[in-house]
Amino acid sequence: MVMQLPKGFRTGGTASGIKPSGKPDLALVRVEPEAAWAFAATTNRAAAPCVLRGRALYRDRQTISALVVNSGNANCATGAQGIADDSRMAELAAKRLGLEPEQVLTASTGVIGVPLPVKRIEQALPALELADEVDAFAEAILTTDTRVKMSERALPGGARVVGVAKGSGMIHPNMATMLAYLFTDARVEADELRARWPGVVDATFNQVTVDGDTSTNDMAVLLASGAAGTVDPGAFWEAVHAVARDLARQIARDGEGAEKLITVRVRGAATEEEARRAARAVAASALWKAAVHGNDPNWGRILVALGYSGARFDPERIAICLQDTLIYDGGAVPFNGVALSQAMQAAEVVVDVDFREGPAAGEAWGCDLTEGYVKINAEYTT
Amino acid sequence: MVMQLPKGFRTGGTASGIKPSGKPDLALVRVEPEAAWAFAATTNRAAAPCVLRGRALYRDRQTISALVVNSGNANCATGAQGIADDSRMAELAAKRLGLEPEQVLTASTGVIGVPLPVKRIEQALPALELADEVDAFAEAILTTDTRVKMSERALPGGARVVGVAKGSGMIHPNMATMLAYLFTDARVEADELRARWPGVVDATFNQVTVDGDTSTNDMAVLLASGAAGTVDPGAFWEAVHAVARDLARQIARDGEGAEKLITVRVRGAATEEEARRAARAVAASALWKAAVHGNDPNWGRILVALGYSGARFDPERIAICLQDTLIYDGGAVPFNGVALSQAMQAAEVVVDVDFREGPAAGEAWGCDLTEGYVKINAEYTT
Repeated sequence: MVMQLPKGFRTGGTASGIKPSGKPDLALVRVEPEAAWAFAATTNRAAAPCVLRGRALYRDRQTISALVVNSGNANCATGAQGIADDSRMAELAAKRLGLEPEQVLTASTGVIGVPLPVKRIEQALPALELADEVDAFAEAILTTDTRVKMSERALPGGARVVGVAKGSGMIHPNMATMLAYLFTDARVEADELRARWPGVVDATFNQVTVDGDTSTNDMAVLLASGAAGTVDPGAFWEAVHAVARDLARQIARDGEGAEKLITVRVRGAATEEEARRAARAVAASALWKAAVHGNDPNWGRILVALGYSGARFDPERIAICLQDTLIYDGGAVPFNGVALSQAMQAAEVVVDVDFREGPAAGEAWGCDLTEGYVKINAEYTT
Repeated sequence: MVMQLPKGFRTGGTASGIKPSGKPDLALVRVEPEAAWAFAATTNRAAAPCVLRGRALYRDRQTISALVVNSGNANCATGAQGIADDSRMAELAAKRLGLEPEQVLTASTGVIGVPLPVKRIEQALPALELADEVDAFAEAILTTDTRVKMSERALPGGARVVGVAKGSGMIHPNMATMLAYLFTDARVEADELRARWPGVVDATFNQVTVDGDTSTNDMAVLLASGAAGTVDPGAFWEAVHAVARDLARQIARDGEGAEKLITVRVRGAATEEEARRAARAVAASALWKAAVHGNDPNWGRILVALGYSGARFDPERIAICLQDTLIYDGGAVPFNGVALSQAMQAAEVVVDVDFREGPAAGEAWGCDLTEGYVKINAEYTT
């Protein structure tokens, strides 16, 4: 797949040798002349230097002009040396692009606790070519992902939103991080981006659950170059939401050892927060994930997860559908278990819950729990 | 093992035919003449009729005189019929023992959403024999547990605390419930029991995590017959805590498909709540559980779980020991990975964390994540 970048953006990726496999592991984004930006990052207390630096930049600057990302090493739990290495990475990227370091946002993803080999970045950056397609960038940010994750939407008038992401559950020693970058050439004020991006992230990336572990390096960034001029705000945010949601689903589908995407949609909740929380609890339940893997239409496991989610509902009023078949309606209802088990063999298993309490809805995505997940995560030895 | 009950208690168990396997599934406790009691139950919103009835009894009564428990059927999500069946079960047990129904606490554990076959209970109760040992009771409350769980402590002066429990993670269709009963012949006022039991439950049973799912039927009950007279309160609560902790560890060790017990101890935390929360996050981390299964001393996974637990700490100040070996001290420290991996092959893997923040400590228990867990939970078909 070749995906063109919006106007104002050029990106690239290369193999610097950080990954022993020799796969691409260094990626660069340049925005001409600069982009308004919005930034959301992990709440993990052991946050990596790139997250701490990103937060500080975000307090100080309305715009940035470049991103540099390495994969294969998270530069986390690396102490004072890690902070210095992260700054050095920004300096090297700035030098390569003719910018100041504070115009460059850094990100790292990969193994924890190992010093970042900045020398390799220094050696590889000068030859890193920038192009008008996002593909090389999308590939160079991957760790244990089995595929690149890209998505795009066009807006009336020609502006576009292009997104790329990586993430596939926590795997090999914590190569778990979710990174997401959305690029647009729509002209949107920094204040508006900042005000609305957290809501998009909450409804999409934060509703992905692969194994419940939240990484030290997670980051979701929205960059607007403005090169395509102003746009209708409603259409813009709809496009941003659609791209983010599409990427979130791609991340869930690529979960560690996963064979199926699980989508949980909750409606009729008292609040959006409760709808999302309830959907997340079902998508994250190890028991339900294992049942999906085994094609078992076991509504008891869905009910139990809803019950401990903290969302308010009355078990005697709610309805649950699985693959569009009603399986619970205030209590057990008869259904054809054999046919439903067959329907669960699809690549996507959809659970619909109606709380019949209020107007709010939410969705979450996960993946089935397979012997493969355990195998990969148990058999790796540091 | 034969474990004598404290004075005032007689218990028994039998096979009523609720379990298709024909294993024991009906259990009874009689306290002469009555017991002061303390009750803690699940917060799951889809709580079963026995939990709702237990809560109501606990509001109304300072004492009870009997327990009736069935295994093999949770009588949950069974609607109005389920509530009637639960009341009927109390009536039948009361009749068998010459009591009033409101002197009897009920409990059910097993499959969800299937009507309770009360007829079988009615037929089996008259012949259910009571004895001075707890063993038959301990066996009849099991579901997918692979072993009975019992523990005892003696107090100076002759009073005793005897505990039994069941629970082994959520398994087959939600036979997940944890039930725990502690019996003592110490004389303790109902007010004191009620005031202090929740603290014991929080520090022990609520710190067990097998797969994170909280059942609809969980219950932990403390009964004091008073037949052995008054005791030193300090010694009494120490014994209650020790029995509850021992049972909690037995439950974690018997987790679904588990091959090892994981113990996580956190000290130096700002508050007890944070210490417990941090310990629980590590014990519950799918990534750490898989690493333990694979004998992988991967401290990155411990750090990540501590980081998202919500507990306050500075990753550059904390220390982590694994099987008594220091593996992290404000950053990576050198250790012999081969020797430590060998040490992790023990039946119990112990993680010690020191936050170096404050005076509080807490512990939690879990089990390793094995291919067996996925297999059992995926391959069951309703």
